[in-house]
Amino acid sequence: MGLTRSRPSHEILSGDSADVYFARAETILEQEGLDPLVTMEVFTRQDAVLCGIDEARNLLGHVLAGTDATETRLETLSDGDVIAPKEVVLRIRARYRAFGLYETAILGIMASGSGWASAARRVVDAADPIPVIGFGARHVHPSVADQMDYASVIGGCIGASTPAGARMAGLAPTGTMPHALVLVFGDTVRAAEAFDRHIDPDVPRIVLVDTFKDEAEESLRVAEALGDHLWGVRLDTPSERGRVTPDLVKEVRARLDLAGHDQVKIVVSGGIDVDRIGVFKDAGAPVDSFAVGSAISKASPIDFTGDLKEIDGKPVAKRGRIPGLSENPRLERIDLQR
Amino acid sequence: MGLTRSRPSHEILSGDSADVYFARAETILEQEGLDPLVTMEVFTRQDAVLCGIDEARNLLGHVLAGTDATETRLETLSDGDVIAPKEVVLRIRARYRAFGLYETAILGIMASGSGWASAARRVVDAADPIPVIGFGARHVHPSVADQMDYASVIGGCIGASTPAGARMAGLAPTGTMPHALVLVFGDTVRAAEAFDRHIDPDVPRIVLVDTFKDEAEESLRVAEALGDHLWGVRLDTPSERGRVTPDLVKEVRARLDLAGHDQVKIVVSGGIDVDRIGVFKDAGAPVDSFAVGSAISKASPIDFTGDLKEIDGKPVAKRGRIPGLSENPRLERIDLQR
Amino acid sequence: MGLTRSRPSHEILSGDSADVYFARAETILEQEGLDPLVTMEVFTRQDAVLCGIDEARNLLGHVLAGTDATETRLETLSDGDVIAPKEVVLRIRARYRAFGLYETAILGIMASGSGWASAARRVVDAADPIPVIGFGARHVHPSVADQMDYASVIGGCIGASTPAGARMAGLAPTGTMPHALVLVFGDTVRAAEAFDRHIDPDVPRIVLVDTFKDEAEESLRVAEALGDHLWGVRLDTPSERGRVTPDLVKEVRARLDLAGHDQVKIVVSGGIDVDRIGVFKDAGAPVDSFAVGSAISKASPIDFTGDLKEIDGKPVAKRGRIPGLSENPRLERIDLQR
Amino acid sequence: MGLTRSRPSHEILSGDSADVYFARAETILEQEGLDPLVTMEVFTRQDAVLCGIDEARNLLGHVLAGTDATETRLETLSDGDVIAPKEVVLRIRARYRAFGLYETAILGIMASGSGWASAARRVVDAADPIPVIGFGARHVHPSVADQMDYASVIGGCIGASTPAGARMAGLAPTGTMPHALVLVFGDTVRAAEAFDRHIDPDVPRIVLVDTFKDEAEESLRVAEALGDHLWGVRLDTPSERGRVTPDLVKEVRARLDLAGHDQVKIVVSGGIDVDRIGVFKDAGAPVDSFAVGSAISKASPIDFTGDLKEIDGKPVAKRGRIPGLSENPRLERIDLQR
Amino acid sequence: MGLTRSRPSHEILSGDSADVYFARAETILEQEGLDPLVTMEVFTRQDAVLCGIDEARNLLGHVLAGTDATETRLETLSDGDVIAPKEVVLRIRARYRAFGLYETAILGIMASGSGWASAARRVVDAADPIPVIGFGARHVHPSVADQMDYASVIGGCIGASTPAGARMAGLAPTGTMPHALVLVFGDTVRAAEAFDRHIDPDVPRIVLVDTFKDEAEESLRVAEALGDHLWGVRLDTPSERGRVTPDLVKEVRARLDLAGHDQVKIVVSGGIDVDRIGVFKDAGAPVDSFAVGSAISKASPIDFTGDLKEIDGKPVAKRGRIPGLSENPRLERIDLQR
Amino acid sequence: MGLTRSRPSHEILSGDSADVYFARAETILEQEGLDPLVTMEVFTRQDAVLCGIDEARNLLGHVLAGTDATETRLETLSDGDVIAPKEVVLRIRARYRAFGLYETAILGIMASGSGWASAARRVVDAADPIPVIGFGARHVHPSVADQMDYASVIGGCIGASTPAGARMAGLAPTGTMPHALVLVFGDTVRAAEAFDRHIDPDVPRIVLVDTFKDEAEESLRVAEALGDHLWGVRLDTPSERGRVTPDLVKEVRARLDLAGHDQVKIVVSGGIDVDRIGVFKDAGAPVDSFAVGSAISKASPIDFTGDLKEIDGKPVAKRGRIPGLSENPRLERIDLQR
Repeated sequence: MGLTRSRPSHEILSGDSADVYFARAETILEQEGLDPLVTMEVFTRQDAVLCGIDEARNLLGHVLAGTDATETRLETLSDGDVIAPKEVVLRIRARYRAFGLYETAILGIMASGSGWASAARRVVDAADPIPVIGFGARHVHPSVADQMDYASVIGGCIGASTPAGARMAGLAPTGTMPHALVLVFGDTVRAAEAFDRHIDPDVPRIVLVDTFKDEAEESLRVAEALGDHLWGVRLDTPSERGRVTPDLVKEVRARLDLAGHDQVKIVVSGGIDVDRIGVFKDAGAPVDSFAVGSAISKASPIDFTGDLKEIDGKPVAKRGRIPGLSENPRLERIDLQR
Repeated sequence: MGLTRSRPSHEILSGDSADVYFARAETILEQEGLDPLVTMEVFTRQDAVLCGIDEARNLLGHVLAGTDATETRLETLSDGDVIAPKEVVLRIRARYRAFGLYETAILGIMASGSGWASAARRVVDAADPIPVIGFGARHVHPSVADQMDYASVIGGCIGASTPAGARMAGLAPTGTMPHALVLVFGDTVRAAEAFDRHIDPDVPRIVLVDTFKDEAEESLRVAEALGDHLWGVRLDTPSERGRVTPDLVKEVRARLDLAGHDQVKIVVSGGIDVDRIGVFKDAGAPVDSFAVGSAISKASPIDFTGDLKEIDGKPVAKRGRIPGLSENPRLERIDLQR
Repeated sequence: MGLTRSRPSHEILSGDSADVYFARAETILEQEGLDPLVTMEVFTRQDAVLCGIDEARNLLGHVLAGTDATETRLETLSDGDVIAPKEVVLRIRARYRAFGLYETAILGIMASGSGWASAARRVVDAADPIPVIGFGARHVHPSVADQMDYASVIGGCIGASTPAGARMAGLAPTGTMPHALVLVFGDTVRAAEAFDRHIDPDVPRIVLVDTFKDEAEESLRVAEALGDHLWGVRLDTPSERGRVTPDLVKEVRARLDLAGHDQVKIVVSGGIDVDRIGVFKDAGAPVDSFAVGSAISKASPIDFTGDLKEIDGKPVAKRGRIPGLSENPRLERIDLQR
Repeated sequence: MGLTRSRPSHEILSGDSADVYFARAETILEQEGLDPLVTMEVFTRQDAVLCGIDEARNLLGHVLAGTDATETRLETLSDGDVIAPKEVVLRIRARYRAFGLYETAILGIMASGSGWASAARRVVDAADPIPVIGFGARHVHPSVADQMDYASVIGGCIGASTPAGARMAGLAPTGTMPHALVLVFGDTVRAAEAFDRHIDPDVPRIVLVDTFKDEAEESLRVAEALGDHLWGVRLDTPSERGRVTPDLVKEVRARLDLAGHDQVKIVVSGGIDVDRIGVFKDAGAPVDSFAVGSAISKASPIDFTGDLKEIDGKPVAKRGRIPGLSENPRLERIDLQR
Repeated sequence: MGLTRSRPSHEILSGDSADVYFARAETILEQEGLDPLVTMEVFTRQDAVLCGIDEARNLLGHVLAGTDATETRLETLSDGDVIAPKEVVLRIRARYRAFGLYETAILGIMASGSGWASAARRVVDAADPIPVIGFGARHVHPSVADQMDYASVIGGCIGASTPAGARMAGLAPTGTMPHALVLVFGDTVRAAEAFDRHIDPDVPRIVLVDTFKDEAEESLRVAEALGDHLWGVRLDTPSERGRVTPDLVKEVRARLDLAGHDQVKIVVSGGIDVDRIGVFKDAGAPVDSFAVGSAISKASPIDFTGDLKEIDGKPVAKRGRIPGLSENPRLERIDLQR
Repeated sequence: MGLTRSRPSHEILSGDSADVYFARAETILEQEGLDPLVTMEVFTRQDAVLCGIDEARNLLGHVLAGTDATETRLETLSDGDVIAPKEVVLRIRARYRAFGLYETAILGIMASGSGWASAARRVVDAADPIPVIGFGARHVHPSVADQMDYASVIGGCIGASTPAGARMAGLAPTGTMPHALVLVFGDTVRAAEAFDRHIDPDVPRIVLVDTFKDEAEESLRVAEALGDHLWGVRLDTPSERGRVTPDLVKEVRARLDLAGHDQVKIVVSGGIDVDRIGVFKDAGAPVDSFAVGSAISKASPIDFTGDLKEIDGKPVAKRGRIPGLSENPRLERIDLQR
């Protein structure tokens, strides 16, 4: 699973999005003529699914290009690795001024990515073996929607809803139809028929059935109208109407089956999280897939810390940390010459 | 407080970061020749400090430019407004195909921004009247570090740590020095003197005093060395050493005062959040300012929802919602011709 | 509010439903030639709304008829009185063998009645000023359905669903229509029209709207069909569909109003209890009345205790109780000669 | 264990204790000339010990007598069966107008009975192998005291205190003596001696020993006085005196044994419930039997629901339920021709 | 309230009961020829009722006798003072070697005393205005029974049970009779009569009434036997019999009053603590006094700390403390020349 | 482990520290000429580590000396035994007047001792296999400091801090140095060097390293100065500085090891209790021993009760207890003739 090796943005490379004190530190060291060879180790304090390493490697690849290959060294774990508290996930040996300014960016990339990937993993584990589709894009700033979709897939989702995010994860984007489309057509069946007429036959027809009518009644109408073109229905009953319940899923399944529509699948969305998935699974509700948004997008970033542990070959550490390198045989050395 | 009126990114304008079903909806409607005049209302379900409206207005300003001014209409609240559950914060009347694709981006911008601003407000309210500086950049992806810093200021912080974020908020960036700088110099006093030598005199000298020695001892050494150049010290004792405690602040204050350094201020950082601030305030610790990172950056986005409430002049709503426009006299009409 | 002064049942008068030890005590005393003049006091240990006194008076009126009027004396509080823990609610002075056998029946009548009336009062107080209709008959044995309905009215309900209970409380019975009727007709509107054709015009037309279709859609269909014959709709959404929610009530109200049916009332039923009523009231849902079943019928009986406190004029008590009569100026003497 | 096949009461057969809307439904269907062949299934939503089926069969036997034996069909579980949530316990196929009016009574009979039987089972299971006697009659209306006693025995009690209830369960009634008898005699020993003189020798002599004196002292006095006529003593210490404790039982046992009265048994009563029984058993108190009242009589009824699942051979269900018959191989067909 | 000014024990004066490191510190300083003039401040970290100061003053009076009166100085609060967290309760200025060895003893005296006095105060406050008698001697080592009794009186008890403790507090000892005495006589009344015959008439006759018979029965027997010699009865019902309950007190009061013994008082003992006193007071039980043992004797000591704050006139403090003297205007200077 | 067989104090032998009612009982019995041969059993109601038996035996040895050896008998368990609720730990058969007065003292000795020993055991079990040193003397009255130290050792501590207590337990006292010594020297290294110069070489050099400087920095300074004279360092960081944390221990260990001081041990003190020890062990902190004060000294006494169970050969008991001797094969008969 590869990250497009694109050049990092100007804002990142310029240090404009970095804590200003790193820029000041660089100025001071330059004025003092100091540029020691240092080793920085990056870790977090909690269990997590690591994500963002690929993007961090790309950033470091750009900034360390051209440094002295005999002394510069980069070691990392990989996106998707399950990591332990205080485990070193990234170790950089280089002249401090070559990369000190990018500490903010490197930590931030991994913080956001690992937060989303870890949340996705919890949801996916809870739902297993029922597949999960991520579609939290509407809950995060569009500048990071692609990273969030990528992290969802790293965490185990089988699909993601934005073209940018899906592309980053090497997939086609996944989606059904918005309520707005149904409202504009004024009838679910008419909207479904229009979708079926105009959208590439490769895209599965999944019709949203809670906009106007009782979900069971509407599912039957849609199944009659689209016949075997219909891949499935999506239940997204709002909280004002008691959300989707396991019994609703069972009833829709039973009424579809009674009418001979056994092949129509049921996708459930709307406030789906680990607890809610547990309710459906405990009740044995015949869900075919879950569509999960804010249970992933709401994940808090996972704070990472970067510590200098060697300076010019001598073990160091600030008060509270153990001086010298930590052992982690899982670290893999990255070839910076590629 | 203005948002630079820059052109939104290509990724946003192309819909690449939008849920794919909006692009499909647009295709279908185009094929069917439908493009009704609709009114969408945007709201959230919780109390919040609104942030992201300025950026959303800018996006809509670009996408609605050139539409029929007699029918298009945009009404919004403003960044920094305290909003109530279900209160309409943004209302758009326009041809659906003119803006439907941007629903994901608009909701996402406000979700992230309002999450950060609301968290900042809680911290700022707890600390009041002691000022708060935001520096959570290291905990979020660098692509949104500037928006997070801007939102922190909207929430009431008096400063932010990235140049990009500070610029967006119309301020100079705020910062002290990294532990790495002190480690490279091998001594806090030497690092502080170098900072004092080389950095613009307008930047306040705030020295980090927990790297090598006891904080009280180091504070006295630094105060002796920098004299009245010293603006303050920053206490950032790590959790491994029991974090900064109210008693540490009192003791450092007392020892500085006993030695005649009454003018040196004390900045406290390290895991500062609403609860921790309460501990310091209840104990009467003489903190001069708090530096807050993940209590803001960890804020979950606040989900916003966009509902079509009128189509071609008729009240509509999906099941679970009240058809027709909601009343909100606080909404302000935005001039799209600017 | 009067109780029909009917003769108590044979089972009660024969002592067949009494604890057998009372019959044995009577045998022993008779054999020993003992029949002291005793005073018994009845109380409970909790706050309650008293109910059953009227029926107990009737029973005692029958069993004490013909005893020596110079020594026999009955004092009681009244149905509907709010009573305190340990307050005497009934005091009997008579020869022990004249009434000892009926202790079980007297305590039992008050236990069941006061349990239901107290529960009804809690529900009514929570709903106030929205009226409450009791219809818990299906949850208790039919032999006591009338007493439960009577107790509900004593507790403050404005109606009750069984003819026997309503008659005991001096009211006409209240009701809407069963789901079974709608199912037999196969369509809510057809069932409603049949109801309207055949039932006495004095009976308000309240149509159940959750059997087949979305409640909002069905409410509009029924309102169109019955016009101003329609008094109201009843929402009874099952838990499988998320129960009736405050938002559903608001939406149905809004859609009825938008269509010009402001006069149609909304009755809410289905698992309604004190907590649930609180949810509707806190949310400001425009409920016109609540129909409450098991929140009343599930009430536990409230245990009453009868203690001998005087025997032949001397204060007595078993261990643990205070000998002699308790003071209660609220007690009212009952004329046994009526 | 048989239920006397008596004719149901006039109140039940007349529908007077039924929800009025069933009477109205019957009127409407008659006027419309409708009387479909329907199947109703009855279930509850919780685990329970089923009780009331025998009485319900009897009622249905009377009302369905004379209907068309080729189409009418009754299937049920039995009193005492442990049932699961949503398990069908009763299925009726008949013309709707033949039995619709009795839905309230059937559900109510099973609600009350199953509530009591389930509570009795919990108590009996907790006490096992120590036997439990039910005597909650004083806590319920005398019209249902017999059903409660019958349900207690269905739940596992070895005896019940009312003649009517014991007869229904095929047993002799169980009881000791009331405090009132002891008070009238003025001394426990004199009361015990009178009991022994006048009551049928087949009735076990169980003497209440907490009325006047310390229970241990009184037990010894009674044991001396009645010699081997004494079956046991009953400890019923009131809460004002700290209730019966495990240590009191141990002490009374020890003092009786020291004095050579090993054969005298100890019955414990007074607020006995599952928790309290656990306290006695955990402490190893030598209790010979528990007498349990309100822990059974306070049981809430267990709500049952009746759903039409077929009409004229076609699967139906109201919204929220699965159309068509549910499978339950445990159902047994009842011969209505007996 | 004075402490007998006796010479402290050899064990204390020799330092044998002191932490050994103080003796070692003295040796070292002597060898080094160091003996600075220091100021030590003693405080605790919690709210407390101070007790032990009088004994500590006595100890310091002995050890500082003969030191240089121009430089030695002792300031203290007083036994019974309510003190705040970190408030200085004792300040000693003297040559370090003159008193350093006694730090363990001084802190320990105040720790034990203040623990007991604070617990006594909580009990006394809860019982107010009902008086409390302390009799916890059996729950602490006899070497400190007198100090505990003294501390109980400092905390507000009106009496204490040991002669040594009562003497220290300037009172006569308080007591009733042990269960053993009643057991030896074999009857409560016989034991009470013997007590009345042989004990000084000034000692109030308080008879323990729970040894053999029901407490109410025994109270009446004793009241009849001793007539107006009887001051009161003590209820001490053991937990095996449900402890003393508020209702027992009410009943004994009522039965004594009915028999004309209004003047007999009721003393309650047995597991009495703050919670239990609340139960009696909330129930309005007519208790005349409470006898409290382990609620006082079980009190944990309250840790005190002694800090050097000045050495040879210069403010000092170990890390974590504020250098220099703390202000406390409540401190009173003690004349060491007395 | 033997208790010095010293004569009990005058205060104890005179009964001055006994509950006064025992003295009165003795007077009454003497006047009545009564002195039955009684058996008293002593027990507690909770699990405990027994301590104080040795001292109680000594007291009884003195008071029973000279009584009739054919009838007097003493049976006990031993200090350090783990005892069960209600288990008899001491049984005395003797003339009542020979020992009745000492009940208070005997119970009190065991109450205090067992409280401390049980607390020590809990701490020792939590820390196992890391050794624990008790030094709670400063938190209890100096009159019982030796008994507390003895009880700590009975509970499993390997050392105690007072000479008197250590002697009672047959050990040498354990200790490091007080903060006061370091403060007087003004520098930790100077204080350590003086200690090393003047204190017996057999006493291990354990230097307190948190007085002036960062603990890690100071540990290194001390290790350099004392070389292999240094046995260990003691970390006692105050709560104002976040207490000793597991990470501090790890860091000090790592920095000592990096500098080649592997042999220097780490002693941890300051608020150490069972929970805190758990934190260190869960984190794997390399602690060499724990020094525990108030977790032991704060232990509440464990109440013991003495019951007469036989009088002149007949089983007796007060109400609530089982008459006659309890069986306990673990009791060992003590030879009173020694």
